[in-house]
Amino acid sequence: MSYLALTGGIGGAKLALGLAHVLGPTEVAFVVNTGDDFEHLGLHISPDLDTLTYTLAGRSNADTGWGRGDESWHFMAALEELGGETWFQLGDRDLALHVERTRMLAAGATLTEVTRHVCAALGIAHRILPMSDDPVRTIVHTPDGVLSFQHYFVRDRCRPAVTGFDFQGAGEAAPNPGILKVLEDCRGILICPSNPFVSVDPILAVSGMRAALETCSAPVVAVSPIVGDRAIKGPTAKMMRELDVPSTARQVALHYGDLLDGFLLDEQDAAQHGTLPVATAVAQSVMVSLEDRIALARAAVAFLDDLGR
Amino acid sequence: MSYLALTGGIGGAKLALGLAHVLGPTEVAFVVNTGDDFEHLGLHISPDLDTLTYTLAGRSNADTGWGRGDESWHFMAALEELGGETWFQLGDRDLALHVERTRMLAAGATLTEVTRHVCAALGIAHRILPMSDDPVRTIVHTPDGVLSFQHYFVRDRCRPAVTGFDFQGAGEAAPNPGILKVLEDCRGILICPSNPFVSVDPILAVSGMRAALETCSAPVVAVSPIVGDRAIKGPTAKMMRELDVPSTARQVALHYGDLLDGFLLDEQDAAQHGTLPVATAVAQSVMVSLEDRIALARAAVAFLDDLGR
Repeated sequence: MSYLALTGGIGGAKLALGLAHVLGPTEVAFVVNTGDDFEHLGLHISPDLDTLTYTLAGRSNADTGWGRGDESWHFMAALEELGGETWFQLGDRDLALHVERTRMLAAGATLTEVTRHVCAALGIAHRILPMSDDPVRTIVHTPDGVLSFQHYFVRDRCRPAVTGFDFQGAGEAAPNPGILKVLEDCRGILICPSNPFVSVDPILAVSGMRAALETCSAPVVAVSPIVGDRAIKGPTAKMMRELDVPSTARQVALHYGDLLDGFLLDEQDAAQHGTLPVATAVAQSVMVSLEDRIALARAAVAFLDDLGR
Repeated sequence: MSYLALTGGIGGAKLALGLAHVLGPTEVAFVVNTGDDFEHLGLHISPDLDTLTYTLAGRSNADTGWGRGDESWHFMAALEELGGETWFQLGDRDLALHVERTRMLAAGATLTEVTRHVCAALGIAHRILPMSDDPVRTIVHTPDGVLSFQHYFVRDRCRPAVTGFDFQGAGEAAPNPGILKVLEDCRGILICPSNPFVSVDPILAVSGMRAALETCSAPVVAVSPIVGDRAIKGPTAKMMRELDVPSTARQVALHYGDLLDGFLLDEQDAAQHGTLPVATAVAQSVMVSLEDRIALARAAVAFLDDLGR
């Protein structure tokens, strides 16, 4: 019997690392957003998968949260000299993962198989499950037209105002079979403090995914990515203002709606406790140290267990 | 009016560098073997083009003759950790060229266009012309079956005995139009001291190439890659022994046959002077220093000019 944790990039990976310390490899599986995957320089790049992979492997860059620690940038410098596209930074070591994944996909492997291979090579015992083996691409709507997610997020540094999102291919994409398998005997579903709009919603948009999560008897808890009226990391609060909704934790709970059985608020937002339509718990959710990650993971698991009783 | 120099990898590139010092960008064009191009890790790799490019750009690795100087190998180390193929070494900076070339080819550019772009980016004014924009692949025959060229040359380190060669696609490949243009008004054709079997023969095998070189009124001179009974670089002499022909400079001249108007021997082989069916010249052809490269280039050009008079 296993927990299932849904996660996007940096913020979600922090809690995922805590969960991996608290729960064994058979006790939790991670479902990862692939809506921000893209083809770049002929390579298949899976930013959220890679962030979680490097985090769980102890190879992540502690300063940036993305990419590898102990990285060098000679490839990028040489690419720039050749006039190539340099807006998306690819470290020399990181590049090996993109090249090997692209090669394996071209040879017929699924993204799940590639991810399993990479995890084994990097010594990760926990299961990392791409949300789908089918392509889903997050599209960001702005007043000036649509942008692919990485153009919005990396090239344009989240500067354009957002008016909405599309998840191209999600309607035809099947959930990763490994996810449905975990849901057959699941103890609790945790939505990590990732961006609801561009990290979690793409997962929920995969055909049949939200229904599968709702049908599962296990409780669903989300950890708020908003603390005070700010996102701990990334553009969540900015997006909420642009979408003309309050940039509050409560609003995140409302956004997930019926899916949730519980919502985990930060201590700073304890006052919102009684205003939510679901059960709530309060914890210190700003994760600076590994101890913070582990403590929040314990709190989230305890909350799920309470709800599941 | 321009000279045309045919070249393969390291040995040829040495003389090409001398020629580039002696002749201006409009005075010599380089025709490069692409029979050892291959797809590896999803990348289009052109070893001989790259050796010449890095050599003329002053970026080559003085120790190995291939790849870039000032190189790092973090990509390869990370690829090895992922269980990827590591028999073909790709440096971090070098990789940028393969990625950008592969991207441009996939976008519809010809190999000639890619090469022109790379030369411009690296400040090379001389013309580097792939022998063809169509794929040609050198296949090595051995008693144990056939090997792709890079499997023979790099992976198996030239250990298998050779029994012959195929140049797949050569019969359907068209010569680079830029070569035919140079031949319209050509002052002399120089075959650099590259391996006759796997560097020069693939060029000559391109449909119509040998006929175009023979029809051209300019003299054709080859510089011997054999000095004494040894190849200056690479497996030429070993191949000759395996093919059961004498591993001598004279034999190289016989191999090129009617194509040649002249043959340039090393001083060590001056005794073979009178035994050749073509005009001969003698020079110090072992190139250690840049001065050696320039001196041999001058000698070769002078010989061509003599023959063309």
